[in-house]
Amino acid sequence: MKKLINKPENVVKEEMMGIAVAHADLVKVSLDPYYVARVNAPIKDKVGIVSGTGSGHEPVDYGFVGPGMLDAACDGEVFTCQTPEQVLACDRLANGGRGVLNIAKNFSGDVMSFEIGGEQAQAEGIDVSMVVIADDVAVENSTWTQGRRGLGTALFAEKVCGAAADQGRDLAQITALCKKVNDWGRSMGMALTSCTVPVKGSPTFDLPEDQMEIGVGVHGEPGRYRMDLKPADEITKILAEAVITDLPFKKGDKVWALVNGLGGTPLIELYVVYRKLAEICEGHGIAIARNLIGNYVTSLDMAGCSITLLKLDDDLIKLWDAPVKTAALRWGM
Amino acid sequence: MKKLINKPENVVKEEMMGIAVAHADLVKVSLDPYYVARVNAPIKDKVGIVSGTGSGHEPVDYGFVGPGMLDAACDGEVFTCQTPEQVLACDRLANGGRGVLNIAKNFSGDVMSFEIGGEQAQAEGIDVSMVVIADDVAVENSTWTQGRRGLGTALFAEKVCGAAADQGRDLAQITALCKKVNDWGRSMGMALTSCTVPVKGSPTFDLPEDQMEIGVGVHGEPGRYRMDLKPADEITKILAEAVITDLPFKKGDKVWALVNGLGGTPLIELYVVYRKLAEICEGHGIAIARNLIGNYVTSLDMAGCSITLLKLDDDLIKLWDAPVKTAALRWGM
Repeated sequence: MKKLINKPENVVKEEMMGIAVAHADLVKVSLDPYYVARVNAPIKDKVGIVSGTGSGHEPVDYGFVGPGMLDAACDGEVFTCQTPEQVLACDRLANGGRGVLNIAKNFSGDVMSFEIGGEQAQAEGIDVSMVVIADDVAVENSTWTQGRRGLGTALFAEKVCGAAADQGRDLAQITALCKKVNDWGRSMGMALTSCTVPVKGSPTFDLPEDQMEIGVGVHGEPGRYRMDLKPADEITKILAEAVITDLPFKKGDKVWALVNGLGGTPLIELYVVYRKLAEICEGHGIAIARNLIGNYVTSLDMAGCSITLLKLDDDLIKLWDAPVKTAALRWGM
Repeated sequence: MKKLINKPENVVKEEMMGIAVAHADLVKVSLDPYYVARVNAPIKDKVGIVSGTGSGHEPVDYGFVGPGMLDAACDGEVFTCQTPEQVLACDRLANGGRGVLNIAKNFSGDVMSFEIGGEQAQAEGIDVSMVVIADDVAVENSTWTQGRRGLGTALFAEKVCGAAADQGRDLAQITALCKKVNDWGRSMGMALTSCTVPVKGSPTFDLPEDQMEIGVGVHGEPGRYRMDLKPADEITKILAEAVITDLPFKKGDKVWALVNGLGGTPLIELYVVYRKLAEICEGHGIAIARNLIGNYVTSLDMAGCSITLLKLDDDLIKLWDAPVKTAALRWGM
């Protein structure tokens, strides 16, 4: 295992300590339980936005805490869901008196933790709602999931719900917005290589040098099928067509397109994929109105990519364009 | 070779086509010769800022074209320097009547191309100056270099010179600024794995599973020495102490710190490195006033990192903080 780490069991703790010193102007960090919250949380008279999952998907979710996006985020150990205790701590810090939206990705442990932690927060008098993002079209159920897994749509949901909260919208409105985003987003990924979980020390799965996994999950869960390596254009077509036909996206739709690297894929390759994705969308009469290209929803050091398309209306475009200042996503501030 | 590419010889062309459709609001792209320029270039009455090198180091340099940073960038094929023809095309597009600063990284081919291309631009009446960034302390000469190689300091130079140009400073002032940045920045990198150049199809160098290369170059050039794998804290100490003692950085210095991934290293590991770097700097009485953490100066899919420290004064801090809007670096706009 070749990694820039110390003791494998300390990776997340030391990552959090790094975040604390790197972004002290932006966030405050707790190591027990783990969470990251805005430095000035809770912010009065604004709906709070919280998300969380396992670590190993950086910048998900700690990189998205800051003005215009999340109020707090709680991630567990590597590929291990956050605990209810973490959720409760975040909900308390995110509550400025107008309630909190918990945005969960659809993995069984994540959802259960948000349910229990959210109930505990409600018992303390905090108005809590939850939306579960389930946008991965690859498989219906998976190793750690009942129903579709959560993927790139969560990033968009966190951004636009953060913007809507800044605008003063109430919890019911933002919850409805988040549900709409989930309804309108679809994703699918593929892996060229496995990732290696630090405490395991060896690849999660074996993938022969001439094969790839289509529809892989963000923890290396099996996808739809394995096949021989193909050129980027064919891979892009497989992912894009699966995503487009699922919603389905239609001629005249405006979309947000995310071409996402899984952590070990360099940017040069993601632009090769984006080029073909844009061509495919154009062929369908689908207009990419906004995009994002980079390693944003990762699986440690896995090589591969995922594609997310998400239908846009004018409100969503305005909310996406609104100022944001986080470690991983920033503009207008 | 597991990569998201089509024909290996088309990678850069298809990357450029991807950039063209992805960032059409920001840049215009030429495929013959390759370059990326601001969509509204040339911008009148502003000094133009140009950089370039080989491809394979993304987001260097195309990802840094836009308001507040570069006017144009020209990169060659993978790990192949840009041509004088590309430099000339960029200098023409960057010239708004007050001249152009060409920022070169110190690799022999890069520098020669900027010299010849710059001379051709001057023959056309464009006022051109050049600064060569040579901040890599690992080795004095290397496979493709006379003198120190150019590394992370180039990114900072491009950002602050772009900001200075926006403020209306003249070419002589911005050239002096760029030289000061080069004098004040020091870097060193290390590799856990080799990269694989697409047209070669196999790793550039062999690095046993239990070894790493300290002081590696961005094309996989040999560094200072090989050694057994060490924990991240020890690696960070080796890089940081080499950088700190070289300038040397002193107690009371304010610095910009870049913890840079080489393309195949996930963000979680870079924060582990940053944590230790911050501790080491604190131990020396060096204050990190600004930082950047991510995969910014890459070597295709190489796993590893580099560290850059750069002495700051109030002017450099203000120029770093000034608004910028590029594909890879953005704030305030």
